[in-house]
Amino acid sequence: MSHPYFEHIPNIKYEGPDSTNPMAFRHYNKDKVIMGKTMEDHLRIAVCYWHTFCWDGFDVFGGGTFNRPWHGPVNDQKAAEEKLEAAFSFFQKLGNPFYCFHDVDMMANAETPAEYVKNLRLIADKAEAKMAETGVKLLWGTANMFSHPRYMAGASTNPNPDVVAFAALQVKECMEVTHRLGGSNYVLWGGREGYDTILNTNVKQEMSQLGRFLNMAVEHKHKIGFKGDILIEPKPHEPTKHQYDRDVGTVYGFLKAHGLENEVRVNIEPNHATLAGNSFEHEVEMANAFDIFGSIDFNRGDPQNGWDTDQFPNDIRETTMALYYILQGGGFKNGGSNFDAKVRRQSNDADDLFHAHIGGMDLLARCLENAADLIESKALSSFVDTRYDGWNDGIGQDMLSGKVDLETMAAYALDKNTSPVPISGRQEMLENIVTNHTK
Amino acid sequence: MSHPYFEHIPNIKYEGPDSTNPMAFRHYNKDKVIMGKTMEDHLRIAVCYWHTFCWDGFDVFGGGTFNRPWHGPVNDQKAAEEKLEAAFSFFQKLGNPFYCFHDVDMMANAETPAEYVKNLRLIADKAEAKMAETGVKLLWGTANMFSHPRYMAGASTNPNPDVVAFAALQVKECMEVTHRLGGSNYVLWGGREGYDTILNTNVKQEMSQLGRFLNMAVEHKHKIGFKGDILIEPKPHEPTKHQYDRDVGTVYGFLKAHGLENEVRVNIEPNHATLAGNSFEHEVEMANAFDIFGSIDFNRGDPQNGWDTDQFPNDIRETTMALYYILQGGGFKNGGSNFDAKVRRQSNDADDLFHAHIGGMDLLARCLENAADLIESKALSSFVDTRYDGWNDGIGQDMLSGKVDLETMAAYALDKNTSPVPISGRQEMLENIVTNHTK
Amino acid sequence: MSHPYFEHIPNIKYEGPDSTNPMAFRHYNKDKVIMGKTMEDHLRIAVCYWHTFCWDGFDVFGGGTFNRPWHGPVNDQKAAEEKLEAAFSFFQKLGNPFYCFHDVDMMANAETPAEYVKNLRLIADKAEAKMAETGVKLLWGTANMFSHPRYMAGASTNPNPDVVAFAALQVKECMEVTHRLGGSNYVLWGGREGYDTILNTNVKQEMSQLGRFLNMAVEHKHKIGFKGDILIEPKPHEPTKHQYDRDVGTVYGFLKAHGLENEVRVNIEPNHATLAGNSFEHEVEMANAFDIFGSIDFNRGDPQNGWDTDQFPNDIRETTMALYYILQGGGFKNGGSNFDAKVRRQSNDADDLFHAHIGGMDLLARCLENAADLIESKALSSFVDTRYDGWNDGIGQDMLSGKVDLETMAAYALDKNTSPVPISGRQEMLENIVTNHTK
Amino acid sequence: MSHPYFEHIPNIKYEGPDSTNPMAFRHYNKDKVIMGKTMEDHLRIAVCYWHTFCWDGFDVFGGGTFNRPWHGPVNDQKAAEEKLEAAFSFFQKLGNPFYCFHDVDMMANAETPAEYVKNLRLIADKAEAKMAETGVKLLWGTANMFSHPRYMAGASTNPNPDVVAFAALQVKECMEVTHRLGGSNYVLWGGREGYDTILNTNVKQEMSQLGRFLNMAVEHKHKIGFKGDILIEPKPHEPTKHQYDRDVGTVYGFLKAHGLENEVRVNIEPNHATLAGNSFEHEVEMANAFDIFGSIDFNRGDPQNGWDTDQFPNDIRETTMALYYILQGGGFKNGGSNFDAKVRRQSNDADDLFHAHIGGMDLLARCLENAADLIESKALSSFVDTRYDGWNDGIGQDMLSGKVDLETMAAYALDKNTSPVPISGRQEMLENIVTNHTK
Ligand SMILES: [Co+2]
Ligand SMILES: [Co+2]
Ligand SMILES: [Co+2]
Ligand SMILES: [Co+2]
Ligand SMILES: [Co+2]
Ligand SMILES: [Co+2]
Ligand SMILES: [Co+2]
Ligand SMILES: [Co+2]
Repeated sequence: MSHPYFEHIPNIKYEGPDSTNPMAFRHYNKDKVIMGKTMEDHLRIAVCYWHTFCWDGFDVFGGGTFNRPWHGPVNDQKAAEEKLEAAFSFFQKLGNPFYCFHDVDMMANAETPAEYVKNLRLIADKAEAKMAETGVKLLWGTANMFSHPRYMAGASTNPNPDVVAFAALQVKECMEVTHRLGGSNYVLWGGREGYDTILNTNVKQEMSQLGRFLNMAVEHKHKIGFKGDILIEPKPHEPTKHQYDRDVGTVYGFLKAHGLENEVRVNIEPNHATLAGNSFEHEVEMANAFDIFGSIDFNRGDPQNGWDTDQFPNDIRETTMALYYILQGGGFKNGGSNFDAKVRRQSNDADDLFHAHIGGMDLLARCLENAADLIESKALSSFVDTRYDGWNDGIGQDMLSGKVDLETMAAYALDKNTSPVPISGRQEMLENIVTNHTK
Repeated sequence: MSHPYFEHIPNIKYEGPDSTNPMAFRHYNKDKVIMGKTMEDHLRIAVCYWHTFCWDGFDVFGGGTFNRPWHGPVNDQKAAEEKLEAAFSFFQKLGNPFYCFHDVDMMANAETPAEYVKNLRLIADKAEAKMAETGVKLLWGTANMFSHPRYMAGASTNPNPDVVAFAALQVKECMEVTHRLGGSNYVLWGGREGYDTILNTNVKQEMSQLGRFLNMAVEHKHKIGFKGDILIEPKPHEPTKHQYDRDVGTVYGFLKAHGLENEVRVNIEPNHATLAGNSFEHEVEMANAFDIFGSIDFNRGDPQNGWDTDQFPNDIRETTMALYYILQGGGFKNGGSNFDAKVRRQSNDADDLFHAHIGGMDLLARCLENAADLIESKALSSFVDTRYDGWNDGIGQDMLSGKVDLETMAAYALDKNTSPVPISGRQEMLENIVTNHTK
Repeated sequence: MSHPYFEHIPNIKYEGPDSTNPMAFRHYNKDKVIMGKTMEDHLRIAVCYWHTFCWDGFDVFGGGTFNRPWHGPVNDQKAAEEKLEAAFSFFQKLGNPFYCFHDVDMMANAETPAEYVKNLRLIADKAEAKMAETGVKLLWGTANMFSHPRYMAGASTNPNPDVVAFAALQVKECMEVTHRLGGSNYVLWGGREGYDTILNTNVKQEMSQLGRFLNMAVEHKHKIGFKGDILIEPKPHEPTKHQYDRDVGTVYGFLKAHGLENEVRVNIEPNHATLAGNSFEHEVEMANAFDIFGSIDFNRGDPQNGWDTDQFPNDIRETTMALYYILQGGGFKNGGSNFDAKVRRQSNDADDLFHAHIGGMDLLARCLENAADLIESKALSSFVDTRYDGWNDGIGQDMLSGKVDLETMAAYALDKNTSPVPISGRQEMLENIVTNHTK
Repeated sequence: MSHPYFEHIPNIKYEGPDSTNPMAFRHYNKDKVIMGKTMEDHLRIAVCYWHTFCWDGFDVFGGGTFNRPWHGPVNDQKAAEEKLEAAFSFFQKLGNPFYCFHDVDMMANAETPAEYVKNLRLIADKAEAKMAETGVKLLWGTANMFSHPRYMAGASTNPNPDVVAFAALQVKECMEVTHRLGGSNYVLWGGREGYDTILNTNVKQEMSQLGRFLNMAVEHKHKIGFKGDILIEPKPHEPTKHQYDRDVGTVYGFLKAHGLENEVRVNIEPNHATLAGNSFEHEVEMANAFDIFGSIDFNRGDPQNGWDTDQFPNDIRETTMALYYILQGGGFKNGGSNFDAKVRRQSNDADDLFHAHIGGMDLLARCLENAADLIESKALSSFVDTRYDGWNDGIGQDMLSGKVDLETMAAYALDKNTSPVPISGRQEMLENIVTNHTK
């Protein structure tokens, strides 16, 4: 094999902030050390297989515009291998340390369980070889259990147990391949784990199926000795009208209800956060608070019209704040920075794929530096610490430790008999601090 | 005492669907028996004190328009008693069996803890007498811990423990008054339990405070022998940018994290549901699934622009569906149908208060009949039951009961080696059934 | 030819409100006379070709689920004729008087201008014969200038004049076919007439192109003697991020800027209305106020998450109000009631197509009766007339007629020297009137 | 008089980007010359009277938190003069060249027309003196015709002509005061020019009233020789459910319908833009395209939950893009950069007012530099110019000039007989250019 893809594109190099070369990094300088760790090791950036190598530019109102040279007329083993070739050529030009995949992104099309197993293993062999050859690592693998018509009513939440069995096969095989390829995490995204209409749905029944299925996946992880994290990616809706893995708070409740809060972590996506009515940094902080933070899909959506466009990140302020809270929580461990870089349907050149990934990686690097500066300045954290000082002793500590009850607290208030004077929250000053650190 | 309020309004009577009298019920026929229970006992309708008797018609862009005769220039004990007089006159004309209140709605203004205790108890005595005299009962009481400037940064989640102590006093006193007045429930609405900016907030710390505070309230309930339910009313935001009691799923996770899932139930409001991105009936079904359903605030918002307008309900289809799932879950126990009927700022007559409440009560009655018909027809439930039939035996049952693991499920799929054929979910037919039962 | 489609479905008949037959009308009784006209003549209901006969059930996250027997592996002339056969079989079972189409819905696939002309004319011949045979009429035709990749950057607003020329060819041919088939209207929907990013867009240039193109279409209409209306269908976004034909108010400004306000009317869709932040009835009233009301696509979207789902209408209150204002404005002339009935992806049976269309037609009939009752009762209109009474004489009339200027008005106020007392707008009472007429 | 306000605050000075002094500018260096003009002259920054000096921190859920020392118990002439003193003290510390006001922000309370005239003129005398003394200029004045209960059903669109006469008096007087104070513009914001419910509204009637009223205002401007611009500030809703001045496109249609498109310009606010579903830069470009661009209220809202919070601007990317298009359109003439800096209810110190205004002014200065760099680089504009090159001659030019008709265009396409190949829109590359210029 095979076609030499992206021949006209140079290896993407760091050229510094003043470069005007669109095919270079201005900020992503992988070996630069920040807070004791290289940019590369902080960010653990991954390219996603799906939008970059599989999507042909179709949307609901029109057909594909891309004409990727590695897309054959049918998705057979030969086409799958061409796509793999294109992907790893791309990775080598770009210099990303990690990638991510769905089973069906990489493999030849399969209709039956037996075909599925065969074709997945075939491509896994090829990917293993490519990874060894190039040094590109796997951030996570996942099974696509939402595109095939058999999953139109859900995977583990399907009313038909036979569909759930097919899903079990996919998860088992795909987790094993992820393990074999040295993946750091295994992701479950509940694409159609929800309902289009509550009228035909038994919500309690479906949540029981999902809970048991997730437990089965966790048990299997331990059985095969996979040491990475199992991640759930919250999303409130789309493709289904309502999805059970709505947001971090909801996922936590679900995990807790099924005894999984120490076994499963979350993979947070900013556009899923805002779709659910939360800010990106809120979701990170909720995950930190519940100790279930795992990984990030940094792709953005359109905040104005609620579209999950899966574009590469370009919001400096939002990404700075997210990285600030991620670093405050200890940074990535098994997780990392995946970002979809779904180019626009009008961006029908291979060059556009590079513009998107360069833009995303540069933004992450720039915001990592901003976040580190913010942390080192303690400008926010010292304000917050001081604000809650009252809880470290006295009645505050006694309340938190359970030493006092409602009556005692009430008596304390009555005894003081004053109405506490409110103190400024200084939102404007704190926002200015963030703005000034957003460089 | 006192001014005879609403003298020109007749007692509101049931006149049947063809009446053209705006001051009569067309559907609310309290003694009509449906599914073995009277309408009154099914719905347990309550009038809320706040919007109906306290609000003066102001909004953010303009001053009050209402000139209620019972509003004095200052909110002293005399004014509080006038308002009580107006409220119970209204109840008697309207014929609602229940009412609801915030402490500060009913009592004279208080700045200090001591004044608070004194003034609350004073008005409680008067309310107790009025209730005995009229037979109107209390659905729930609640403490307003969000209007006073001292609560600008939250009540139990305030950075200042002294503010939390004041809140503890309010909850203790107000719960005791609710108990004394024979209330069926005690509600906690986390008005400012959240943040305006995450920049000055320690999310984990604040959730710990909220969790401990809630536990203190539950312990106090048991201590004083209050047999009603403790309810949390979820709302995603407003007044604060983010509130911790986001929606039913989030509240469940929070309760579970603090060991409260068997102690606290939810008071669901449809406009809070849609603000959080959920349908009203979804929230009811989530509460049923987690067994934390408590009560309803049936007031609507504006689904188009995200305003929580607290208007009386007038969506026949939505209310029919909500009541369908409420009845499927066993109907109200301690809970009931409160609805705010915040009249529009331009509706500056006392008559408008009656139009709003008549409209809401009639709608609830009409939808109760629709819901009962739907249940009795089994048109939806039999479809749903059949759809999940596969889980009552075989591999489905084995999965749910934990008998099989992921590997066994996968082997089952591989053994069958077919791709299950998807079956129509029949959404359109089911929607037509609902439409045809929406009368 | 051909396959006998829908053989197992009976002709859909009116059976009255108590029928439990899902394959019958409860309300659509075409010959029933309401306000002097039959239901059929009032509503002028049309079935749309696209969603009903072309869509295969794909969405952005998954492949087609429908397996329509009339879908061949390629869309050649034979497949187009099979689809035509299926469509007219469906119309005959359902009893809809009208249908609507996009050129590419009906015709065999065409890549070049010459193929386009040939294939469109070929299928037009067949459609003409089918229409003669069955009596089904054409409400409107339209050219799809958004699905083919050549239109990815717009049709008449494309930066490339050659693309605009192709669009001109489509409009010319498709308008002529619409004329030949006796169509009542010709629709222009600006699918990609807008931008995905303002960064690469010259907004003023593109609006000039659109304005000139529209004028060319109007000139051509007069040239060929087409007597129907030219309609624009407003939509704020989707597929593009921003579309120039945002809503009725914006379209009016655009028409006025290009001298077209007496030549072009609007085709209003409720989910496009709500996507743009307007209520459905608002858009109808704006069109009435500007005298550009044309026709309706009654399909609904999901009001909660902003999806334009193109489902059949099932909101009784909204549809009643829309028909009320349509009738108040004089009712349909050339226009009519198209509604998309895009069944859900899980509704993969041909039966579901019937459920959807029966549901929609029944709803329109039911709401037509409600709207007529409301009009005949004068319950709303007499209230409104009285409210603006002051403008029929005195200072009000003088202001509107231009007799007085700002200074005179100000002097009038100063002379009276009082602050007018506001009068209740009676929103709650009026809402109850609507609720009571929503049967 | 009077209290020396803000004594502890220094004059705010430019200290450069590395300053850590929160009471200094990092970017706003008023005399710095950019593209041939000083920052001060480019931006023409104004402080708004309302949120900064009048608001007391109340919201719908709670009372005022601010305790401004210049707020008396009643708003009489003395209180008005104290507020004026505070305002001009603030301006002198901050160094803003302009301010803006509503009549009622500055004047003592007035109930009758005669009181209104008297009190407005009284405070105008005082303001005139203060302006002469300090050199602070007036960007625009406006009449508040939405806060008083008399305006609950609108000002010029009120059903009662007497209310419209009161509004005429306010506009006449306030425009004359604006003229006297050397104001650059007179603004009309249609606060309640719309409806809360369409059920009691005659939309066409109300739009006629608004159109005639606006014409009266324009005639008066010419009569008194006011040379500034008359501005309309679009907003889609809030306080009313629907407002007629929805967005720039709608306002343009309205102006055109009333022959005012050459007499009235728009005052654009970014949160009003996004509330209406448009981006900020879209609204600027629409105003440029229709040649009705006037001025900006740069205050931001909360893009996530649709709240118009009127906070100071802090979105670097959005503000850079808006200023880019403003400069491309020729920059401000009579208009300028007003921004509300409504501090958060928890920011109850006078210091917070300074943080907010410093943050806003610094952001505008920083983004002005970004925008100027982008313009000078021609990185965007040369791409756009090239993209539409085809319209400068050939068939493109012939179409725009009206030389060819639909038939000729169609014949041209048929003659070429090819399907044009789509060219990448390069959105990702252009976004990277913007990101790299966002410093
Ligand atoms: Co993702
Ligand atoms: Co996504
Ligand atoms: Co409530
Ligand atoms: Co509410
Ligand atoms: Co349509
Ligand atoms: Co649509
Ligand atoms: Co403004
Ligand atoms: Co605003």
